[in-house]
Amino acid sequence: MSPPLSSLGEFGLVALFERAAQARHPATRVGIGDDCAVLDLGGLERVLLTTDLLLERVHFEAAWLSAEDLGHKSMAVNLSDVAAMGGEAVAALLALGLPPGLEVAWVEGLRDGLVGCARAYGLELVGGDTVSAPGGAVVCLTVLGRAPADEVVLRSGGQPGDRVLATGPLGDSAAGLHLLRGGGAGLAPEDRAALLLAHRRPEPQLALGRELARRRLAHAMIDVSDGLVQDLGHICERSGLGAELDADGLPLSAAARRLAALEGLDARDWALSGGEDYRLLFCVPGGLAAEAERVCRGLGLEAAELGRLGAGRGVRVRRDGQVSAPADQGFDHFGPRGAR
Amino acid sequence: MSPPLSSLGEFGLVALFERAAQARHPATRVGIGDDCAVLDLGGLERVLLTTDLLLERVHFEAAWLSAEDLGHKSMAVNLSDVAAMGGEAVAALLALGLPPGLEVAWVEGLRDGLVGCARAYGLELVGGDTVSAPGGAVVCLTVLGRAPADEVVLRSGGQPGDRVLATGPLGDSAAGLHLLRGGGAGLAPEDRAALLLAHRRPEPQLALGRELARRRLAHAMIDVSDGLVQDLGHICERSGLGAELDADGLPLSAAARRLAALEGLDARDWALSGGEDYRLLFCVPGGLAAEAERVCRGLGLEAAELGRLGAGRGVRVRRDGQVSAPADQGFDHFGPRGAR
Repeated sequence: MSPPLSSLGEFGLVALFERAAQARHPATRVGIGDDCAVLDLGGLERVLLTTDLLLERVHFEAAWLSAEDLGHKSMAVNLSDVAAMGGEAVAALLALGLPPGLEVAWVEGLRDGLVGCARAYGLELVGGDTVSAPGGAVVCLTVLGRAPADEVVLRSGGQPGDRVLATGPLGDSAAGLHLLRGGGAGLAPEDRAALLLAHRRPEPQLALGRELARRRLAHAMIDVSDGLVQDLGHICERSGLGAELDADGLPLSAAARRLAALEGLDARDWALSGGEDYRLLFCVPGGLAAEAERVCRGLGLEAAELGRLGAGRGVRVRRDGQVSAPADQGFDHFGPRGAR
Repeated sequence: MSPPLSSLGEFGLVALFERAAQARHPATRVGIGDDCAVLDLGGLERVLLTTDLLLERVHFEAAWLSAEDLGHKSMAVNLSDVAAMGGEAVAALLALGLPPGLEVAWVEGLRDGLVGCARAYGLELVGGDTVSAPGGAVVCLTVLGRAPADEVVLRSGGQPGDRVLATGPLGDSAAGLHLLRGGGAGLAPEDRAALLLAHRRPEPQLALGRELARRRLAHAMIDVSDGLVQDLGHICERSGLGAELDADGLPLSAAARRLAALEGLDARDWALSGGEDYRLLFCVPGGLAAEAERVCRGLGLEAAELGRLGAGRGVRVRRDGQVSAPADQGFDHFGPRGAR
């Protein structure tokens, strides 16, 4: 009797594939383990490839997300991976499983969300696959991007002493999810709308990623999809470093703070382990932090310094004067909190 | 009240997206509607992109297909799309949804099938996504290929008078499915094994596709995934032509013929509308048919001439001296025969 997948965890599962895929194709520059795979097909540019799978009732509830929101979000999530490499998005493939009884209007909404987001970020839907999925909608989107060969930013490039920066707000998406789960009675309508929008309509930071890459300001970069602690943990692991995060300096929105106060919760938890913010988290050498902040301001964004890379392993969080290494480093699809 | 998706059919669904995706990216050479999308990222080569979604209980029954077969088949199906463009496969992304209670040994089997097939055809698994799928396994594979810019073979290039060729056998996969559904009592074990293998372990014809493309022998090409009539129909539609298929000349295996005789069925139906054979179907100018046949023989394959492209619309089938246009032109996921 073989043990169940849940005993392995999501990272154990990925490792299972990573170990077997050791036969390197001459075109592969980066394989499993970064936001995108990086291919060298000749020339001065690299090809970036990323894919995401969204399942009804696992990643979204049809009642919580309109078809158009779902389309937008599926696209945005993949574009965010291209942004995290410093790339530009070129083309997308959509593999779609749909229940045959679904209304055509729902599919048109999904399409409008997908195609609208693609158009806003300058890429095209070039192909895909459509199948019947009686058990619930399945959306698998793949995006191809590109970046100049010497400007691709990996998770693995972090250096000791690098400042860890991100643009805020962080935690709004998790706060929005809290509302969808029925929380937040008494929250002001404009706060509610802002937090729901952050959850339903994340915007990938392609311009910021490209600009940081072009100016060679980031040693390492990732997008905040699993939660700040876990995503910074990926940079630490790939860079062979540790990091300290200052929870007191997190860029939280006023709306998230007000919701947290109303519920007796700490908004910092949404930022640290909520995920789905799709903001870029980037590691900048100390001497370039001011320039990175200027680049952010030029794009209408405010960079927050969240901590530093250093020796050791894993992420330690400084919070209310105490430093600890959180056991819960984010979302594991197959772990004890899985399948939420 | 919006009508249900099933009223639209699979091709209506694709058209819904095709119409909306009209904003052409300068890199797009071929978008929705061929075996692969074709991108021009600069240089003398084109990038080919294709994706396929396989769902448990829709595309496969875990009891009918071992995990290793499923892994192999998922990869082979995508590689067959690259073969149909005349391309070479470079890299694959795997998006995987799995029930958390699944055994690790099953996942290892799936991986071994996928990676084994990738290795056999010279490409690498470079990334993906893993999520929990309590409703049943979901496998979405995306393959990136490449081909010299002037050697990409489209569905749309067919010319009147072109000979329609394929290498056999055709229909074995559908015959194998017939066995899995409980048919074929009394069939010889070696016939049973051969037909099941054809269904479970299709081999993509990458070498054949590349060679036909390199020698510029094929005006148009597609792989037989939906069924011969429907797939030739795609070439006709994109080329603005009609075609006549000679059902009496179909390359059927002796095993499929014996199974059909045993069951009182006609093996030609498996070839015409069964699908999943993943053989290449290609249209060759009359003067080059002999050379195309030589290329096939050089690869240990036997080419069969199935008919010709000509004026008109759609596919007509000549069978036992009668010509008819089959109403059932193959498998529609969302049509009346959908979700099988």
